[in-house]
Amino acid sequence: MDAAQADSQAKPVSIDRLLKIAGPDMAGVDTMIRDRMQSPVAVIPALAEHLIGGSAKRLRPLLTVAAARLTGASDAACHNLAAAVEFIHTATLLHDDVVDSSELRRGKVAAHLIWGAPSSVLVGDFLFARAFELMVETGSMAALEILARASRVIAEGEVLQLTRAHDLDLDQAVYLEIIKAKTAELFAAAAESGGVCAGASPEQAAALRRYGQELGLAFQLVDDALDYSGTSETLGKNPGDDFREGKATLPLILAIERTGAQERDFWMRTVDARDQTEADFERARTLVEDSGALEATLKAAAGYAEGAKSALAHFPAGEWRSALADLADFAVARRA
Amino acid sequence: MDAAQADSQAKPVSIDRLLKIAGPDMAGVDTMIRDRMQSPVAVIPALAEHLIGGSAKRLRPLLTVAAARLTGASDAACHNLAAAVEFIHTATLLHDDVVDSSELRRGKVAAHLIWGAPSSVLVGDFLFARAFELMVETGSMAALEILARASRVIAEGEVLQLTRAHDLDLDQAVYLEIIKAKTAELFAAAAESGGVCAGASPEQAAALRRYGQELGLAFQLVDDALDYSGTSETLGKNPGDDFREGKATLPLILAIERTGAQERDFWMRTVDARDQTEADFERARTLVEDSGALEATLKAAAGYAEGAKSALAHFPAGEWRSALADLADFAVARRA
Repeated sequence: MDAAQADSQAKPVSIDRLLKIAGPDMAGVDTMIRDRMQSPVAVIPALAEHLIGGSAKRLRPLLTVAAARLTGASDAACHNLAAAVEFIHTATLLHDDVVDSSELRRGKVAAHLIWGAPSSVLVGDFLFARAFELMVETGSMAALEILARASRVIAEGEVLQLTRAHDLDLDQAVYLEIIKAKTAELFAAAAESGGVCAGASPEQAAALRRYGQELGLAFQLVDDALDYSGTSETLGKNPGDDFREGKATLPLILAIERTGAQERDFWMRTVDARDQTEADFERARTLVEDSGALEATLKAAAGYAEGAKSALAHFPAGEWRSALADLADFAVARRA
Repeated sequence: MDAAQADSQAKPVSIDRLLKIAGPDMAGVDTMIRDRMQSPVAVIPALAEHLIGGSAKRLRPLLTVAAARLTGASDAACHNLAAAVEFIHTATLLHDDVVDSSELRRGKVAAHLIWGAPSSVLVGDFLFARAFELMVETGSMAALEILARASRVIAEGEVLQLTRAHDLDLDQAVYLEIIKAKTAELFAAAAESGGVCAGASPEQAAALRRYGQELGLAFQLVDDALDYSGTSETLGKNPGDDFREGKATLPLILAIERTGAQERDFWMRTVDARDQTEADFERARTLVEDSGALEATLKAAAGYAEGAKSALAHFPAGEWRSALADLADFAVARRA
C-alpha cells in the first residue's frame, strides 16, 4: 500500500451519510423527475427513462438539495429546481454523446445508438426546455439566472472542447478552462442555485458556488484519471475512450509533457493522427502511470477537493456540512 | 388570372408598413442580437453570424415587438425578449437542419455542412441558453413561462414529426398537430410574450396568442405549398425538399388522398420507400397541382390568416393593428 492509498483509506470515502439525510428530498426529486419527463410523444419518455431512470447517481440535484438544506431550507421548495438541474445535465449528456459518437453511457448503450442521433438531439432539447419550465415554477428569477448562465457557459465549454481538445499542443490552462465550463459550472450552479432558492446571503451563495466549482473540478479530474486506470465493469463505460477519441485530458497532457522527447512518434501517431491499434491504449496507460501523470492528476483533484471543503467554513457545523465534506472526499477516493 | 389570384392581388400583400413603423425597434433588436451572439469561443459568433447575420426576415421578433406596441409599450423594454425569440428560433433551425440533413438554409449552405453537425448542435444549445439569459433580463417571469413552454412544445413537435412524418398514412389531424407545435407555437408565444411584457390584460394576451398561432399555421401551410410550387431562386432553398425527404405535408397528404387509387404505386415507391429518381418530383408537383391539393392548402392557409385578423379585434384600430393585419395577408399572398 502506498502513501496515497493509505491516505485515502483514512478518510471517510463514502457518501452514505449524505445519501441517508438527503433520502427524503431525493425521493421527492425523483418523483418530480419522473413526472416531468412524461410527454404524449412516446419516444420522449422512453428515451428519457433509458438515461434518467436507471443507475443515474443524481449528483447534481443532490448538490442542489444539500445546498438548500445547508442554507436552512425547511420545506421542499427546491425539488423542482433540483429536477431542473438533472434535466439540464441529462440534456447535455444526450448532446455530448451525439457529438462524441460515444457508445456507452451510465453502463448502457448510448441513446443515439438505439433511437438515432436526431431523437437524442431533440429529446435533449425537450429536457432543456422542461428544465426552464421547472425553474419558472420555483418563482426564483435569481436561481433561473444562475442556471441560464450555466447552460450557456456549458455550451461554450463544449464548443471549445470540440475545437481544441484534439490538439496535441493543448496546454493545461485551456484544458482547465474547458472542464471549468463543461463540468464544474453545473456543479457550481447546482449548489449556488440551491442556496439562493433557500434564501442564502450573497456570501453564502458565493461560498456554495466555490464549493460546487472545486468539487466539479475534482470530479472531472478523477473521471479523466479513471479513463486510464479504471475497468469497464466499475466505470459503466469503456476505459480508454478519451484516448481513442484523441481527447486531451490532464493525464494525457502531463504524460505527453513528461515523455514527449522519447515517445514523440507514438503520441503523434496515436493522438495527433488518431491512427491507433488495439494495443496502443495499453501502452498509453503504462506511460500515463509510469510518468507519474496519473498521480499528478489525482493530486490536483485532491487539491480542489480541499478547496471545496474550505468553502464550507462559511456555514455552521452540522450534519449537512459534514455530509458535503464527505462528498468532496468521495470525489477523489472513488474508483468509479 | 383565376379567382384566388385576383383575390390576393386585391389585398395589401406587402409588409412594408409594418417594417417601417417597427424599424426603430427592429434596429434595437438587431443590435441586441449581434451583441449577444458574441462569445470568446470563435466558432460560436462565426456560425451564428452565418445564420442570423444575413437575410433573416426576423418575423418572430417582429411579432414580439409589434405585439408589445399594439398593447401600448412606450419604451424599448421588450427588445431583449424579441432577441430571445429569434435565438430560440435560430437554435431550432440549427438542430432541425442537423436532424433533416438539410443542405440549404436562408439561401446559404446549411451550417452543419460547413462547421459540422456537432458544432451546429452545440451552438444551437448556446443560443437557446442565451435566449433564457435574455429573458431573465426582462424580469418578466410570465414572459419566461410562455417561452419556456413554447420551447418544450416545439421539441415535442419535432420529435412527433421525426417519428410520424414519413408515414404514408399520416392524416391531416396529426399533420396539424405537428405544425401547431413546430411552427405556430413560437409565433403564438412570440406575440403573447410581447404583449405580456408590455402589460397586456389576460384577454389581450389570449388574443395575441391566437393571432400568432393562426398566423403561424398560415405561414407553415404556405411554406409547405411553396415547396411544391416555388423556385430555388425565390425560396432560398430547393423546392421539392419535403418530397425528397418523404415528409408528409398537407399538399402531399391531400394529393395522396385524391390520387391514391390511380397513383398508389408511385406514392408507395417515392414516399413510403423513398426510392426516387430526379424526374419524380416533377410528377409529384403535377399531381399536387392537378388534384387541387395545392389550392386546398392555400385555401386552408387563407382561413387561418382570416382567423388571425379577427383576433386583432380585441385591440383598438390604429397603425399597429393595420400593420399586423397586413402581415396576416402577406403570409398567404407571398411567393417566397
